[in-house]
Amino acid sequence: MTSNAARVLAHPAREEIRVEGVLHALSDPVRLRIVRQLAGATDELACSRFDLPVSKSTTTHHFRVLRESGVITQFYRGTAKLSCVRTEDLDALFPGLLDSVLGAAERQSARAGEV
Amino acid sequence: MTSNAARVLAHPAREEIRVEGVLHALSDPVRLRIVRQLAGATDELACSRFDLPVSKSTTTHHFRVLRESGVITQFYRGTAKLSCVRTEDLDALFPGLLDSVLGAAERQSARAGEV
Repeated sequence: MTSNAARVLAHPAREEIRVEGVLHALSDPVRLRIVRQLAGATDELACSRFDLPVSKSTTTHHFRVLRESGVITQFYRGTAKLSCVRTEDLDALFPGLLDSVLGAAERQSARAGEV
Repeated sequence: MTSNAARVLAHPAREEIRVEGVLHALSDPVRLRIVRQLAGATDELACSRFDLPVSKSTTTHHFRVLRESGVITQFYRGTAKLSCVRTEDLDALFPGLLDSVLGAAERQSARAGEV
């Protein structure tokens, strides 16, 4: 029982999600990159599939900030920790916010000649 | 000459404004409140007109973060330091971003029964 409980990750309820927390979560370049990849994916992505220029523990930290701010959901499937963006919750709470942030990040990357 | 130069405040050029910096600047509750007030004003507002629940030096810090991230312009008129949101620059760089953040903050305040 204890081991199962430990594998259920804590998430804020929709009404607990704060715009300041969402903006803070998205204000880090690595976290913004994670969210862009997740938003562009057709299914949940495993954390281990992310090739990020930071250590494993830093990656774990970034995913936790994203989860605790309400930007992503994380859950276990077998031994893999999967993540997806809480698009429905965010769009209901803050219409247009997620899309405009993703669009802004895309335009900035395009200007800089990045992918 | 020196005293004049010291009174011209440094601002990033439009192309230097980064979405991560803008999101970071707006992720603080006090800074978000300042930007909401500025965005709702019909003319430039003096820093001294803001009644904020923080010390004067903290207020100065928040205005500096907003200016250095490209969210606001600050300039002197006589002894008053005036501020306004860089709406034109932000809308050109990141269409819809500022409006969706302000809208999100408004919806959140309305839900919480705040003004």
